[in-house]
Amino acid sequence: MVRLSTGIPEFDKLIEGGIPQGFFVALTGEPGTGKSIFSESFIAEGLKEGDACIYVTTEESRDSIINQAKQFNWNFEDYLDKKLIIIDALMKEKEDEWSLSELSAEELVNKVIEAKQKLGKPRARLVIDSVSALFLDKPAMSRKISYYLKRVLYKWRFTILATSQYAITTSQAFGFGIEHVADGIIRFRRVVRDGELKRYILIEKMRQTNHDKYVWEIDIKPGKGIVLLGKINER
Amino acid sequence: MVRLSTGIPEFDKLIEGGIPQGFFVALTGEPGTGKSIFSESFIAEGLKEGDACIYVTTEESRDSIINQAKQFNWNFEDYLDKKLIIIDALMKEKEDEWSLSELSAEELVNKVIEAKQKLGKPRARLVIDSVSALFLDKPAMSRKISYYLKRVLYKWRFTILATSQYAITTSQAFGFGIEHVADGIIRFRRVVRDGELKRYILIEKMRQTNHDKYVWEIDIKPGKGIVLLGKINER
Amino acid sequence: MVRLSTGIPEFDKLIEGGIPQGFFVALTGEPGTGKSIFSESFIAEGLKEGDACIYVTTEESRDSIINQAKQFNWNFEDYLDKKLIIIDALMKEKEDEWSLSELSAEELVNKVIEAKQKLGKPRARLVIDSVSALFLDKPAMSRKISYYLKRVLYKWRFTILATSQYAITTSQAFGFGIEHVADGIIRFRRVVRDGELKRYILIEKMRQTNHDKYVWEIDIKPGKGIVLLGKINER
Amino acid sequence: MVRLSTGIPEFDKLIEGGIPQGFFVALTGEPGTGKSIFSESFIAEGLKEGDACIYVTTEESRDSIINQAKQFNWNFEDYLDKKLIIIDALMKEKEDEWSLSELSAEELVNKVIEAKQKLGKPRARLVIDSVSALFLDKPAMSRKISYYLKRVLYKWRFTILATSQYAITTSQAFGFGIEHVADGIIRFRRVVRDGELKRYILIEKMRQTNHDKYVWEIDIKPGKGIVLLGKINER
Amino acid sequence: MVRLSTGIPEFDKLIEGGIPQGFFVALTGEPGTGKSIFSESFIAEGLKEGDACIYVTTEESRDSIINQAKQFNWNFEDYLDKKLIIIDALMKEKEDEWSLSELSAEELVNKVIEAKQKLGKPRARLVIDSVSALFLDKPAMSRKISYYLKRVLYKWRFTILATSQYAITTSQAFGFGIEHVADGIIRFRRVVRDGELKRYILIEKMRQTNHDKYVWEIDIKPGKGIVLLGKINER
Amino acid sequence: MVRLSTGIPEFDKLIEGGIPQGFFVALTGEPGTGKSIFSESFIAEGLKEGDACIYVTTEESRDSIINQAKQFNWNFEDYLDKKLIIIDALMKEKEDEWSLSELSAEELVNKVIEAKQKLGKPRARLVIDSVSALFLDKPAMSRKISYYLKRVLYKWRFTILATSQYAITTSQAFGFGIEHVADGIIRFRRVVRDGELKRYILIEKMRQTNHDKYVWEIDIKPGKGIVLLGKINER
Ligand SMILES: Nc1ncnc2c1ncn2[C@@H]1O[C@H](COP(=O)(O)OP(=O)(O)O)[C@@H](O)[C@H]1O
Ligand SMILES: Nc1ncnc2c1ncn2[C@@H]1O[C@H](COP(=O)(O)OP(=O)(O)O)[C@@H](O)[C@H]1O
Ligand SMILES: Nc1ncnc2c1ncn2[C@@H]1O[C@H](COP(=O)(O)OP(=O)(O)O)[C@@H](O)[C@H]1O
Ligand SMILES: Nc1ncnc2c1ncn2[C@@H]1O[C@H](COP(=O)(O)OP(=O)(O)O)[C@@H](O)[C@H]1O
Ligand SMILES: Nc1ncnc2c1ncn2[C@@H]1O[C@H](COP(=O)(O)OP(=O)(O)O)[C@@H](O)[C@H]1O
Ligand SMILES: Nc1ncnc2c1ncn2[C@@H]1O[C@H](COP(=O)(O)OP(=O)(O)O)[C@@H](O)[C@H]1O
Ligand SMILES: [Mg+2]
Ligand SMILES: [Mg+2]
Ligand SMILES: [Mg+2]
Ligand SMILES: [Mg+2]
Ligand SMILES: [Mg+2]
Ligand SMILES: [Mg+2]
Repeated sequence: MVRLSTGIPEFDKLIEGGIPQGFFVALTGEPGTGKSIFSESFIAEGLKEGDACIYVTTEESRDSIINQAKQFNWNFEDYLDKKLIIIDALMKEKEDEWSLSELSAEELVNKVIEAKQKLGKPRARLVIDSVSALFLDKPAMSRKISYYLKRVLYKWRFTILATSQYAITTSQAFGFGIEHVADGIIRFRRVVRDGELKRYILIEKMRQTNHDKYVWEIDIKPGKGIVLLGKINER
Repeated sequence: MVRLSTGIPEFDKLIEGGIPQGFFVALTGEPGTGKSIFSESFIAEGLKEGDACIYVTTEESRDSIINQAKQFNWNFEDYLDKKLIIIDALMKEKEDEWSLSELSAEELVNKVIEAKQKLGKPRARLVIDSVSALFLDKPAMSRKISYYLKRVLYKWRFTILATSQYAITTSQAFGFGIEHVADGIIRFRRVVRDGELKRYILIEKMRQTNHDKYVWEIDIKPGKGIVLLGKINER
Repeated sequence: MVRLSTGIPEFDKLIEGGIPQGFFVALTGEPGTGKSIFSESFIAEGLKEGDACIYVTTEESRDSIINQAKQFNWNFEDYLDKKLIIIDALMKEKEDEWSLSELSAEELVNKVIEAKQKLGKPRARLVIDSVSALFLDKPAMSRKISYYLKRVLYKWRFTILATSQYAITTSQAFGFGIEHVADGIIRFRRVVRDGELKRYILIEKMRQTNHDKYVWEIDIKPGKGIVLLGKINER
Repeated sequence: MVRLSTGIPEFDKLIEGGIPQGFFVALTGEPGTGKSIFSESFIAEGLKEGDACIYVTTEESRDSIINQAKQFNWNFEDYLDKKLIIIDALMKEKEDEWSLSELSAEELVNKVIEAKQKLGKPRARLVIDSVSALFLDKPAMSRKISYYLKRVLYKWRFTILATSQYAITTSQAFGFGIEHVADGIIRFRRVVRDGELKRYILIEKMRQTNHDKYVWEIDIKPGKGIVLLGKINER
Repeated sequence: MVRLSTGIPEFDKLIEGGIPQGFFVALTGEPGTGKSIFSESFIAEGLKEGDACIYVTTEESRDSIINQAKQFNWNFEDYLDKKLIIIDALMKEKEDEWSLSELSAEELVNKVIEAKQKLGKPRARLVIDSVSALFLDKPAMSRKISYYLKRVLYKWRFTILATSQYAITTSQAFGFGIEHVADGIIRFRRVVRDGELKRYILIEKMRQTNHDKYVWEIDIKPGKGIVLLGKINER
Repeated sequence: MVRLSTGIPEFDKLIEGGIPQGFFVALTGEPGTGKSIFSESFIAEGLKEGDACIYVTTEESRDSIINQAKQFNWNFEDYLDKKLIIIDALMKEKEDEWSLSELSAEELVNKVIEAKQKLGKPRARLVIDSVSALFLDKPAMSRKISYYLKRVLYKWRFTILATSQYAITTSQAFGFGIEHVADGIIRFRRVVRDGELKRYILIEKMRQTNHDKYVWEIDIKPGKGIVLLGKINER
């Protein structure tokens, strides 16, 4: 089985070397827990390895993604439209080729396939950040849309990270769809402990993988990205 | 009363030898707790015993089931379309004989019966993984659909495992239908304890059976499948 | 006041000798807590005492009821259609005289009255297992249906046990109707304590009765049925 | 200010002698906590004092009320249709003069006024057991109906006890209407403490009254009715 | 800035002398916590100071307000229709000039303005007891109505107390509208502590005011009204 | 990256000098926690630095904002219509140029752009206090409106603070939209600790910023505004 590195070597070790190729993995968590930066790391590693990379952004502008990545020394600009396409699903700029005019699952899928055809044949990585944006005004549709995405994108052989938002107040997911069709679930959390905001990561599920089962405290370090500080129970 | 082995001898002992023939048993739990692997074990044992086996998969592709099984040395491929039919209820491939084009209780039942007729007369095992997929966009219908499944499939003398998903965040079932018509309920749980993800199993109900009443910690071991580590209160 | 034995002598003692004749008593609890077996015991005792007995089953087949009863040495088959009618509200077999073709309160009431007329004049016991099935797809109707049942059946002088399901995850009743019109409420519970599944029983209400007010641990014993192990606080 | 005795002298002392004449008092609590028996005591005292008494029963038959009262040596039968009218709002017997054919606030009010006219001029006591029955299938209407009852009945100078049901599982009221228009609120509770069912009473509100503010444990004693055992914190 | 005394000198001290003139202050809390008596105190003080006073009552009759006030030696009757108008929004008496025929925000506002014109030019105090009554059957409208009240009444230069009900069981407000447009929030609570009902008051918000931030235990004393017993943490 | 001071130097230090220019930052919290005063401080600092400043107020009148600011020695009046426009979205005064006649996202955006054009070219600060007002009667629209605001206002290069209300009772946000599109989230809390109301602030998210992660106790001081008292765990 081929496994794709996440760009975080300590993390790769927890899942037998990386995300199994062709998997659809959910990154779940509250805002500010590092889901987007984890995704950017996955893309940065893909670019290094020569993969075709597509990043769909629904909550930030393309610039915001690029600027954030730059802070960790990931140069996205040089790869743009060659190895990397950032699909802007927020701004709806008409003149922009890689912008969605409407945020629907169908449009997203079509644009992603168009991007894949443009980038050509190599192994492909796809980030959907966030998939929740597709069904937040219709949570009852979350599973149907999740099924649809999995079914259609599966045929195009992507390895996919899809971020899923948790309500900041209740820690409940918006719609429960994505976790249940996902081949893997990586849970990001933030907790205030003794008056300090701490962030954690846990692999809740990874099919066909004898994965690590510990909660790891993480940090986000300028110039580096996500860093594993240690298992929570050993600190 | 005839009882069917689950393929996990230690578990069979907890329920007087196995699942009573003709029972409709619910496997409930969060994603990643081992419901699918338990189901695959039940099928693998059925194949060994010469039973007709049908596996309906709504969340993974047929390949994913086969690959996952292979990791526990259960060779599903050799039996395909002879003793085993895997009905793909996710991919909706038109050219595939054992694919559902629409995910409805009626279509599922029809395809299952068609499969049963194809596999012939022996004792039959059926897995529906997951039954929740049938009513997640209409939870109010969960009981009606559960009744329907029980009523119709009962006449075809299947012994049935039906997995039921719990919401990852609230541990609430999607629709409460299935547990209430089930002849047995096996509860899978995962809990983070001291920063480590642990998995447990408990027999909550098994009609006509003087079953075990302890919570068992389980592990999923490569090459072996589900293993009982011990009673939770003795570890 | 005439009181009907439940077939569990220790339990009868807790309620001044038995269920007051003409009462409508709710048995509430999660799946697997013993509600059906308690009801079967009530019927078995009725048969022994020469009462007319009607058992409406909405979640199990008639055979399942009979087989389960047999395990406690209650022979239901010999009484069938003489002193006992089991109305199958699940299977909807057209050719079966004592089957409901549709599960509605009106049909149920009609069939029950028909059965009563068939069984003739003696004192009559009625079990509705479960009454929740009547309003689970319309919980807002639960009280209206409960009122209706009480009003109509009251005139036919049944002594009634009606089981009511609790959601397995939240321990909330499906619809709150039945407890509020009931003359008595017997609460069945199951709790995992120190990793072991324990079952309890408590009389929450019994009109016109100076009833026991303790929580009793129970067991279900092959060949015996429900057994009171002792008060929870004395064990 | 005139105050009406509840028939429970120890309780009267807690509220400066009794319920202020003309008040609308809510009795709230789970099933089996003693609301109906408290109400019957209030009526029994009224009969003793020569008041006109009306008891509207929505959950029990008239007989059930009479039989229950008899157990506490309150003879209701002798007063029937002279000083006492029990309006049966459950059974809907057409031939019965004091039966409601439909359970609506308007019908109830009309029948109550009719009863008042029949009973003549003396001071009048009214029990509505339960008021929840009027809006359980339309909880959003609870306040409107509560306002309506208060407004209309106020003009007829009743002193009113209205029972209000709490959900057995969540201890939440069915609709919040009645407490908010009530001049007084008496809360009945039942709690399982150390495996024993205990019952308590607390005066949560009583306008124009310097009332007691303690939680009292109560018992229901055959031949006596409700008895105050003592303050919870002194036992 | 002009500040209006609440008639409770110890309380005035907590808010730099009183309620800022022109403010819209919410009094929130469960039934029986003292909101109405606090409001009556505010009115009694206004009458003493020669202010024009309007009291809108939606849950009690005008008489009930007057009688309750009398118990604290506040003579409302003498001022009626001279300095004080009590608008009865409950009884809907047609012949009563200061009665609302329908309980809507618009009618209430019109009647209040009419009353203001009748009372003439002095500084004006307004109590709306309760504002919840305006949107309890349409909680989704609570904010819109709150905005409307604030906007319209603001122009008439009232200083306003508006009581807001909390659900007795869940301590949740009925609609969240009023707190969010309010210039000040005074929270009334009642809690059972060691079997005794205690009442507390806390200033949660008061714009433009360096207010006290402690929870105070209060008592309601015959002949005196609301009394501050002390800070909760010092008792 | 340019960063804009909040006017609170100790706070600026926690976020590498200030709010990144062009960011959309959510201030979330219950009423009375200091969100408006924080926003006023941000505007006061903008005026000092010569920025164009726009303050949209939906819950208070323009006067209330000005008077509150005055208490902290921020003179807003002198800047009005020169460097500062306060858009009154509450009072709907027709004759007022900077008043909204209807409170919709579109009208708000149009008026804000009109104000920006009036104030001319300098760097622009925008406060929307509160953004919740835009979707409180249609919470399901919260995300759509949040997206819309972000997309449209982004093109006009504002640096934006948007306050978001939490329900006073449940601490749940009204609609979850804003946090999920926000570039930064500053959480205001109030908690009663040992009978005293305390207020806290925490930076939950700030993109492209190595921000502080501690909970700080704050105070609101006359003549000064918001003051950081210290980290909660060090006090
Ligand atoms: N240069 C940086 N240095 C340190 N931490 C940073 C830096 N940039 C961003 N962060 C951290 O990353 C967080 C944003 O993470 P992000 O992946 O966007 O969260 P999510 O996608 O889960 O909402 C910020 O709130 C901040 O704590
Ligand atoms: N080869 C393996 N070795 C060890 N653990 C495995 C292996 N394959 C799968 N697993 C475990 O099994 C989990 C998946 O179990 P599964 O039965 O699919 O869960 P469910 O059906 O309850 O969602 C994975 O998350 C992983 O923890
Ligand atoms: N022969 C038996 N010996 C011991 N226990 C049994 C036997 N048969 C059934 N049980 C127990 O009874 C349970 C079923 O009880 P039941 O009355 O059907 O529950 P409910 O109606 O409350 O869902 C089974 O889960 C099992 O624990
Ligand atoms: N004769 C009696 N002796 C002792 N307790 C009795 C007697 N009759 C009834 N009770 C008690 O009263 C309870 C019924 O009280 P009731 O007032 O009807 O409750 P509610 O109206 O609150 O539902 C019974 O559950 C029982 O515990
Ligand atoms: N004369 C009195 N003496 C002492 N307490 C009184 C007196 N009158 C009323 N009370 C108290 O005041 C309470 C009513 O307060 P009220 O302001 O009407 O509550 P709210 O408006 O918050 O529902 C009564 O429940 C009682 O406890
Ligand atoms: N002059 C002042 N001195 C001290 N505290 C003040 C002053 N003015 C206002 N406050 C405090 O500020 C609070 C209002 O803060 P505000 O920013 O309006 O809250 P929010 O916008 O979060 O609802 C008041 O409740 C009060 O506690
Ligand atoms: Mg993100
Ligand atoms: Mg599975
Ligand atoms: Mg049962
Ligand atoms: Mg009752
Ligand atoms: Mg009041
Ligand atoms: Mg504010």
